[in-house]
Amino acid sequence: MAASFSSSRRVEFRDTDAAGIVHFSTFYDWMEEIEHEFLRHCGESVMQADGGGFVSWPRVHTSCDYQSAVKFEDLVDVELSVVKLGTSSVTYQFAFRCQGRHVARGKVVAVCCRIESNQPPRTIPIPDGFRQKLSQVMP
Amino acid sequence: MAASFSSSRRVEFRDTDAAGIVHFSTFYDWMEEIEHEFLRHCGESVMQADGGGFVSWPRVHTSCDYQSAVKFEDLVDVELSVVKLGTSSVTYQFAFRCQGRHVARGKVVAVCCRIESNQPPRTIPIPDGFRQKLSQVMP
Amino acid sequence: MAASFSSSRRVEFRDTDAAGIVHFSTFYDWMEEIEHEFLRHCGESVMQADGGGFVSWPRVHTSCDYQSAVKFEDLVDVELSVVKLGTSSVTYQFAFRCQGRHVARGKVVAVCCRIESNQPPRTIPIPDGFRQKLSQVMP
Amino acid sequence: MAASFSSSRRVEFRDTDAAGIVHFSTFYDWMEEIEHEFLRHCGESVMQADGGGFVSWPRVHTSCDYQSAVKFEDLVDVELSVVKLGTSSVTYQFAFRCQGRHVARGKVVAVCCRIESNQPPRTIPIPDGFRQKLSQVMP
Repeated sequence: MAASFSSSRRVEFRDTDAAGIVHFSTFYDWMEEIEHEFLRHCGESVMQADGGGFVSWPRVHTSCDYQSAVKFEDLVDVELSVVKLGTSSVTYQFAFRCQGRHVARGKVVAVCCRIESNQPPRTIPIPDGFRQKLSQVMP
Repeated sequence: MAASFSSSRRVEFRDTDAAGIVHFSTFYDWMEEIEHEFLRHCGESVMQADGGGFVSWPRVHTSCDYQSAVKFEDLVDVELSVVKLGTSSVTYQFAFRCQGRHVARGKVVAVCCRIESNQPPRTIPIPDGFRQKLSQVMP
Repeated sequence: MAASFSSSRRVEFRDTDAAGIVHFSTFYDWMEEIEHEFLRHCGESVMQADGGGFVSWPRVHTSCDYQSAVKFEDLVDVELSVVKLGTSSVTYQFAFRCQGRHVARGKVVAVCCRIESNQPPRTIPIPDGFRQKLSQVMP
Repeated sequence: MAASFSSSRRVEFRDTDAAGIVHFSTFYDWMEEIEHEFLRHCGESVMQADGGGFVSWPRVHTSCDYQSAVKFEDLVDVELSVVKLGTSSVTYQFAFRCQGRHVARGKVVAVCCRIESNQPPRTIPIPDGFRQKLSQVMP
């Protein structure tokens, strides 16, 4: 695997708004879709059953900088990389391009947690096998 | 309570699309919001913890007929009524108006189910107290 | 082309709800995505610039019957066909399967319209070339 | 008007996910809803017709820090303030609380633009009347 993971998304009609361009929140949908696609590609899942509960990755920070607009039916190329890897947290970075043109840059910080029903998520260290997979897309 | 339940919703920007009008799927969001608002108004919830699992209302049918378009920032009035009440199922009907003009008419059929983790939903009879509340908005 | 058009969609995390299954409204997102994918496959678009305005396809009816639940990361196969073709309207039907199991059946009735800014959509006959492409997926 | 604008939102069922809590992207929906509600309260709109085109506010940056989870039917209080006001840009800040508990903190940077069909948005200075209204919610 290269030091990044690439995929692409088509701008769907419901993702556009009355200004005729893609709605800003769509980039967050794409970030999460590509993160999960990357994890599946590694043989992992963002939500794994574990005993009575499950291990998942609540977000503690998300952000996006928008550089230029995209329109209905445009094809957007997305490149995911891991730019920071802590004991329990991972920072993903996303570069969005449309026909080579930079359109946006996003960031997601997620924390590895154990979740049991009716209890707040409890932070746990990232399991070794998972960490090793995340480190493969560090530039 | 009258034989219907009324509420209203504002057309949000993300609910519009590149055709400059509200996206058709938004009416389904509103149907569900108003159903749940009605249930809260009755002191009930669409999802109630019950032992290890919960009682909820999966949809078996939804539909909508669209009569005229609504735009960003329009205020849409919604009127919910129960048009059929079976042993386990309820049929809600929704009339949408904008400044008196008919804009859409929707329907949701939901079935009362017990849901336990890792098992398919199991149909149960609608509890008596719940049924009595639903029957109050039958025209 | 066969008498239907097939594609598939992955259940994304944001499409799930607190009941642990896909939210019913997601099927409408998929119907529209597959319709537009089919039109692109035919060299058409659901929204085409035409002089100062554009030709598009507002929905007049949508519906869905749900047979069984799907979960996060399930892969859903969708089969689109055209079951009715009027002067100005088209009725699409969608069959959803997951690993062969029937999960839902949907319908969309859309009307060919000319849309000019600040005017209500005006119904027009489906252009001949477009009609011919739609008729290719009539069973 | 106080040096902030307050509103509240209910957690809707479709905003929850299979982890049983509100999906992170919902906070962006709320930020935009409250921004537009604030503008309406001031007698303005985020999208105003102006000659052949319109004046609107594309986002150049959005971000959110998440402190604690909210669940289905929770009522979330949102406080909007303007923390920076440039020649053409405005920086909104949003504080989210649930029963007094801090749940998230968000930021939106939007730029005043003239939008004509088929042309990229063109940055313009914030009109004086609009600027005066924005400045009323600077802490």
